[in-house]
Amino acid sequence: MRIAVMGYGIVGSGVVELFEKNHESIISKSTQTELDIKYILDLRDFPESPYGEKHIKDFNLILNDPEIGIVVETMGGLRPAFEYVSACLGAGKSIVTSNKELVAEKGYELLKLANEKNVNFLFEASVGGGIPIIRPITQCLAANEIKEIAGILNGTTNFILTKMITDKMSFEDALKLAQDNGYAEKDPTADVEGADACRKICILATLCFGKHVYPGEVATEGITAIASEDVEYAASWGGVVKLIATAKRVNEHRISAIVSPAFVESHSQFAGVDDVFNAILVRGDAIGDVVFYGRGAGKMPTASAVVADVIDCAKHTVRNKMMGWSDSSPDYVVNHLDCEAVLYVRGFSKNVDLSLREAEAVLGDIKVLYRKNQPETELAFITSAGIEREIREKLLSIDSIVPVSIIRVTDY
Amino acid sequence: MRIAVMGYGIVGSGVVELFEKNHESIISKSTQTELDIKYILDLRDFPESPYGEKHIKDFNLILNDPEIGIVVETMGGLRPAFEYVSACLGAGKSIVTSNKELVAEKGYELLKLANEKNVNFLFEASVGGGIPIIRPITQCLAANEIKEIAGILNGTTNFILTKMITDKMSFEDALKLAQDNGYAEKDPTADVEGADACRKICILATLCFGKHVYPGEVATEGITAIASEDVEYAASWGGVVKLIATAKRVNEHRISAIVSPAFVESHSQFAGVDDVFNAILVRGDAIGDVVFYGRGAGKMPTASAVVADVIDCAKHTVRNKMMGWSDSSPDYVVNHLDCEAVLYVRGFSKNVDLSLREAEAVLGDIKVLYRKNQPETELAFITSAGIEREIREKLLSIDSIVPVSIIRVTDY
Repeated sequence: MRIAVMGYGIVGSGVVELFEKNHESIISKSTQTELDIKYILDLRDFPESPYGEKHIKDFNLILNDPEIGIVVETMGGLRPAFEYVSACLGAGKSIVTSNKELVAEKGYELLKLANEKNVNFLFEASVGGGIPIIRPITQCLAANEIKEIAGILNGTTNFILTKMITDKMSFEDALKLAQDNGYAEKDPTADVEGADACRKICILATLCFGKHVYPGEVATEGITAIASEDVEYAASWGGVVKLIATAKRVNEHRISAIVSPAFVESHSQFAGVDDVFNAILVRGDAIGDVVFYGRGAGKMPTASAVVADVIDCAKHTVRNKMMGWSDSSPDYVVNHLDCEAVLYVRGFSKNVDLSLREAEAVLGDIKVLYRKNQPETELAFITSAGIEREIREKLLSIDSIVPVSIIRVTDY
Repeated sequence: MRIAVMGYGIVGSGVVELFEKNHESIISKSTQTELDIKYILDLRDFPESPYGEKHIKDFNLILNDPEIGIVVETMGGLRPAFEYVSACLGAGKSIVTSNKELVAEKGYELLKLANEKNVNFLFEASVGGGIPIIRPITQCLAANEIKEIAGILNGTTNFILTKMITDKMSFEDALKLAQDNGYAEKDPTADVEGADACRKICILATLCFGKHVYPGEVATEGITAIASEDVEYAASWGGVVKLIATAKRVNEHRISAIVSPAFVESHSQFAGVDDVFNAILVRGDAIGDVVFYGRGAGKMPTASAVVADVIDCAKHTVRNKMMGWSDSSPDYVVNHLDCEAVLYVRGFSKNVDLSLREAEAVLGDIKVLYRKNQPETELAFITSAGIEREIREKLLSIDSIVPVSIIRVTDY
């Protein structure tokens, strides 16, 4: 049984390194007598690499080599990853991938193809880096009807928010620091606008509820609009602002899913998740709440998840272990505006006292928040629970308030 | 494929209830067309039970019924569970158990027997209730060399300590409250003296490091000696007291393991684990720290783990999936006194200032702690890191200090 690794970037090189480092125990756990990496595919040259003869640039060497039973895809992006992975599955080779975009956009197709070919398509590393989550959901919690899943799924934004909370940094300064530390890319859009977290909650929601959820179906809001004022009001309320991705069963046939900044209470399991760490909460009918916490990204943590999948592939060579995963259907994901929510509102008013009385008259019970050095024209409050659309409409009907920031309040 | 449940207590009745409740999805996930509970073995009568005809009192009905492929053992205790389980495995039936005493004392033997008979012996529910931990360690973290595992593994003692910390209760009052709430048994010895946590860390250490660790090999200290004063000093130090079970690789051939109260810092992932919740931290060479959190006991959470194992058994009927597990060897577990530790010391002295100077002269750097209304003759401090035996000997050499409480300080 031999392996090919496609993509020798951060994760791919970590996979090769970890595989060599713990080779003996990996072989023993894989129940194979022989298991080694034969090819490393990457278009770039790596003159310093100790794996000289393994580096190749021609994908067809992998595709046409009958010795290759497991292909690790750590290239990222949709093209050419999708074509390569499809071709490998079609040729009866198992795939292990860390590519969340690929799984979120093409998971249904690829899993179907893997099923037809009776090979594995495993993607533990695509969510939560090294944190075990895919297998726990599909196996350990299999006796539960999962009602809800939520998480801090993006380390970059969590690092930025942590710096805004604990060091009182502005968003811009915190982003700069994240970039200087290598936690954020030069173009941080996919992280700070929520697309990365969105792909991951799509994968988790699909596993929990059985139907493919596509990124385009999930309302996604990033953290670029979060201001220090919001962080201060969250503190005065007794919590912190986190970027939370969540998916919830609404009824037998529909779910809701959203990625957005949210207030979480300071006693929440999410509140203490700082810096680049991730945490995922699963709410089942029997188990109650379970939380998985750890490094959600990084070279070796992600490699750890990839190699675990490789071991699993080597142990179960000709059988697809994943649970059912059916394609999406129209209206499967309900609009979050039609769901219940509690909102934090910050805004301006020429007459704060009057506006707050008006807000109470229109919205019902509200909890007014205060902060140090609050300008005379600033107000902030938390609404009662209600249908989000209705709360927003009522809010807009209050002419004396100019809303600046509206953030969801969670009960995790 | 039919199932027998042995023991219709809290967990056993939860298993039957959950199995019936989520029957349809359980069948589908098990990839069987038929999967039902045929027998419920218990010596007691259950006239109100809706499963009238399934209740039996004769174990031989299970043993001699070729239809029974999976036997769930939720009786607890060693006898007759060990005899029944051995007999079932010997007859080629897979076992799913929640019985931590059985696994901790007889796991090696039973797993060997299961291997010989090519059937499953699964015990996810024996540690951490419904928290997925056995499978994540053996599968998801398989690419890691695990360096250390630690946890809050006993809900009863964690509830008591939480009440002592947040409600300033005495140990006695908190124990009484735990008993009134059904969290502690009338005879709470196994919980409060640490035996329950000890069995669980034995199972975890065995899985992480590959050799059976028996409860008798692990130094075990409970929480009965923890006083409110210690809780106050922990707070002044910046943390809380928790009952921590831990096992660590010392070198290639040996491990250390201990169950004892410990100071944990308030930013630790363990500090926020309150009431009857459990948390388990795994430290691997690639993944870093991963934490699993959830309900460590209780009817439905534990049943959730049992039924997940049943589904796994049904999917993999004739193959033992567990990793290698070899028997213990002499001196495998080193004495914790020969390992490095940091200790908190509370004691009495007729001249506190003089004693603290003496302590500093003998022990090196110490961090002196203070609390509100501290009696003039009371002192408390944290030592520097050193071999535990040496610290304790030096401490005893300081004649002017009468130590009352010595508690380990962790860095989790």
